[in-house]
Amino acid sequence: MLSLDDIRAAARRIEGVAHRTPVLTSRGLDERAGGRLHLKAENLQRIGAFKFRGAFNCIAQLDDRQRAAGVVASSSGNHAQAVALAATLAGTQAVILMPADAPLSKRAATEALGAEVVEFDRYSDDREALTRELADRSGRTVVHAYDDPRIMAGAGTTAVELIDAVGALDVLVVPLGGGGLISGCAVAAKALAPGVRVVGVEPAASDDGQRSLASGERVRVAVGATIADGQQLPQLGVQTFAVIREHVDEIVTVADHEIVEAMGVLFERLKVVAEPSGASALAAVLAGRVDVAGREVGVVLSGGNIDRGRFAALIAPAGGAA
Amino acid sequence: MLSLDDIRAAARRIEGVAHRTPVLTSRGLDERAGGRLHLKAENLQRIGAFKFRGAFNCIAQLDDRQRAAGVVASSSGNHAQAVALAATLAGTQAVILMPADAPLSKRAATEALGAEVVEFDRYSDDREALTRELADRSGRTVVHAYDDPRIMAGAGTTAVELIDAVGALDVLVVPLGGGGLISGCAVAAKALAPGVRVVGVEPAASDDGQRSLASGERVRVAVGATIADGQQLPQLGVQTFAVIREHVDEIVTVADHEIVEAMGVLFERLKVVAEPSGASALAAVLAGRVDVAGREVGVVLSGGNIDRGRFAALIAPAGGAA
Repeated sequence: MLSLDDIRAAARRIEGVAHRTPVLTSRGLDERAGGRLHLKAENLQRIGAFKFRGAFNCIAQLDDRQRAAGVVASSSGNHAQAVALAATLAGTQAVILMPADAPLSKRAATEALGAEVVEFDRYSDDREALTRELADRSGRTVVHAYDDPRIMAGAGTTAVELIDAVGALDVLVVPLGGGGLISGCAVAAKALAPGVRVVGVEPAASDDGQRSLASGERVRVAVGATIADGQQLPQLGVQTFAVIREHVDEIVTVADHEIVEAMGVLFERLKVVAEPSGASALAAVLAGRVDVAGREVGVVLSGGNIDRGRFAALIAPAGGAA
Repeated sequence: MLSLDDIRAAARRIEGVAHRTPVLTSRGLDERAGGRLHLKAENLQRIGAFKFRGAFNCIAQLDDRQRAAGVVASSSGNHAQAVALAATLAGTQAVILMPADAPLSKRAATEALGAEVVEFDRYSDDREALTRELADRSGRTVVHAYDDPRIMAGAGTTAVELIDAVGALDVLVVPLGGGGLISGCAVAAKALAPGVRVVGVEPAASDDGQRSLASGERVRVAVGATIADGQQLPQLGVQTFAVIREHVDEIVTVADHEIVEAMGVLFERLKVVAEPSGASALAAVLAGRVDVAGREVGVVLSGGNIDRGRFAALIAPAGGAA
């Protein structure tokens, strides 16, 4: 499966390429939460999210022939920009499949990082099949957004850096979507801080992770409406679930209003910008969903990509109390 | 005057108490600016601004008798919270003189950090005289916001940490208000990176620094309207000007719209929140006011304290292009 050695190897590959992001702390926040929080600020990572770690770790391992053929990924989110930048830095070229109705700003940002964007219709086309077909036809390597040990190992370097910086943790709280981030972080944390409790956080509207861990089987859900667009996935990956089942202690959910509250706290107290999914782990802590009393608690802020208009509307709604 | 030794001593005093703030970089920002920018994120400092460094360095040097008597400062801005927290941490107590029409949130935040707030009328009362009188009557030590070598030395630790982290700089760009931050930073930078060019940045509406450096005398101006409330000062300090005159190479000004542009870039690219004054140095770089082509450039982000409503209105105005 996935080992600490894989994650250590990933850490060597991304060294000097990915940012070693800061760990943020706030006495005021600790008083409010009741534990000592160490916020790993992956919103300050290159392209604004942890996704760059896995994408680069994956693409840096391509051989010459694969590098000449290029890579392909499907995403309208942070994975798109992560793969685009990682491909450019690794001396290859990416094609990104993006829904035709994705925001123009996402498309432009991805192209600016050197990728070619190919549109598909999110309602009529099968994204996975299209990606596979394009890969087969062109010889490009598929870079999956989460269900790949190279992606999981890259994401796990987040926890290695956090524990390097602050020492053993009692609890590690990680946002959960497809499971790439938490699977890598859980393997690293359990190896480096054996007593650590690893808690995943997903939006209540997409609680497949919680159901899957409870039932022991990979449950698929109909995703409801949520502001946490980075976590709107109906099902964990096959490989991520295998790791999660073994290494994650608990999965809790948060409501959108709790995420907004956490985004506001990050703005006001920490002076950083988190996108909704990026603030979800902190939201769970502040909502009392995770037992942190008197503990040393790692919290991953997974991303900060949000349009300024949307950010303003969420944290300072017109006519709102703010 | 002020020496590197004073700043080194301040660095030892604040170690483990002040945050060693991260240095942020962005390839995209570098491409836009044309130089390599190293952003010293003092907006992520305790109380959200560099001011904590000087306040703690000053208050930590009080003797037992002075500590028993307490301190007094006059501020409705970041200095108020800096003195309040530094006093609490150093085992003494602060009285903060604050205008009666200061925002309630500022007052509450200062009180929450352990200070007593005393109101004055900013139109009829003489703030300096009141502070002095209160100090004389109570035996409290005055903690000036900038014109004190202990404050200047504390602020200068910002540049020491920056140069420690990134190596010698070609240019260092620093926001300028009363001159506490730039005087300390200039002394440190000139000693540690002898060829460095130190540039101060002030709002065009308060260009006393630029005029003072040009004329060689401490010029007083009528401060115009600006969003950069941390730099709305009519005149440099006596002691800060003496240092600035000797160690600062140039002072440039920025318009409010240039500051807003920089705040937006910090939000979008770096995922951090800067208050207007805190973004002023970057604003000057992005506006082409500082020659950074091909250079290693330190830029101090001095603070991040801004209400969410005001931040939203500035970076994402209703009906605006954002």
